[in-house]
Amino acid sequence: MKILIIGGTGIIGESVSDKLTPNHEVIIASKSSGDYQVDITSVKSIEQMYKDIPNIDAVISTTGASHFGDLSELTPELNEIAINSKLKGQVNLVLIGQNYINDGGSFTLTTGIMMDDPILKGSSAAMANGAVASFVKSAAIELKRNLRINSVSPNVLEESLRKYGEFFKGFNPVPADKVANAFVKSVEGAQTGQVYRVY
Amino acid sequence: MKILIIGGTGIIGESVSDKLTPNHEVIIASKSSGDYQVDITSVKSIEQMYKDIPNIDAVISTTGASHFGDLSELTPELNEIAINSKLKGQVNLVLIGQNYINDGGSFTLTTGIMMDDPILKGSSAAMANGAVASFVKSAAIELKRNLRINSVSPNVLEESLRKYGEFFKGFNPVPADKVANAFVKSVEGAQTGQVYRVY
Repeated sequence: MKILIIGGTGIIGESVSDKLTPNHEVIIASKSSGDYQVDITSVKSIEQMYKDIPNIDAVISTTGASHFGDLSELTPELNEIAINSKLKGQVNLVLIGQNYINDGGSFTLTTGIMMDDPILKGSSAAMANGAVASFVKSAAIELKRNLRINSVSPNVLEESLRKYGEFFKGFNPVPADKVANAFVKSVEGAQTGQVYRVY
Repeated sequence: MKILIIGGTGIIGESVSDKLTPNHEVIIASKSSGDYQVDITSVKSIEQMYKDIPNIDAVISTTGASHFGDLSELTPELNEIAINSKLKGQVNLVLIGQNYINDGGSFTLTTGIMMDDPILKGSSAAMANGAVASFVKSAAIELKRNLRINSVSPNVLEESLRKYGEFFKGFNPVPADKVANAFVKSVEGAQTGQVYRVY
């Protein structure tokens, strides 16, 4: 398969890439490095990416920014970060990509545990995650040409504990390797409309 | 209590108003009618509303537009309708309102069954509903001054079957009266962070 990983330079993206590279053609897209540069907050940039990289069989998104901060200081403006990136960025990869990728292809998006199990300072990210999870479930029943779509909701990563552990006190971190398996299941399996919770 | 119902001229809003009016001061806000006109897609309009209507104890939102249409024709632009109205409109009522409403006050937002049980043409609404449900759950653990927040997810209404029945074939419609009770429970009860599913 020809597989495009957007956010392929992050911890999860790299782990997914490691698992898929032996058997597939993997293209890494990212905002500033990788094989191809894309800005998922721009509809034009996404459209151009699909034109530049034809015949994709699987699109994996392991990207999306959110503002983390106290709800009392979360302004509508700061909330736009998650809306523009994690939410619209990922949803638009599907809305636009459904017109480009190969028959039988798949989309796999990323959410996160805080949509189910809230953390302090995480309301904006939870909002974006919930949006993506519900969109995926609904889009799955309408995609044409046997296209499939799933999402992966990871717990905090063992590899990210030093950086994000303060936000996730008491959570049971999971290895990126285990999260990456959910992406492989989505791409190489036949399921659609699923939320793979790796908690 | 002083209760503000945004979307108070719709079927659910009117039913909620009927139940609360005997025992409370109810103010109906709406885009073009009611006691007060507000445009929830405008941060300025929301801010002005909270300045114009002080000392609110409970904010109820029974409003929010979404585009309904085939996923294959759902463009990023059409998807903005739900993002700006049902999603950001409702979330901003909370982000801004947390600075204005009375201690111990509450917010109750509206989602919808398609976030759990997808319907054709409903992906954009499902996305917005999922966002609001997860935001509410997360915001609940951070709101200060004993503020509370819940959401209500209604099935298709018996009263709306003529208009929306085509979208909800095989669903079991519920009376607006039953949905309104969930709002009353949210306002007059003490729970927070809940999704009241009226299915």
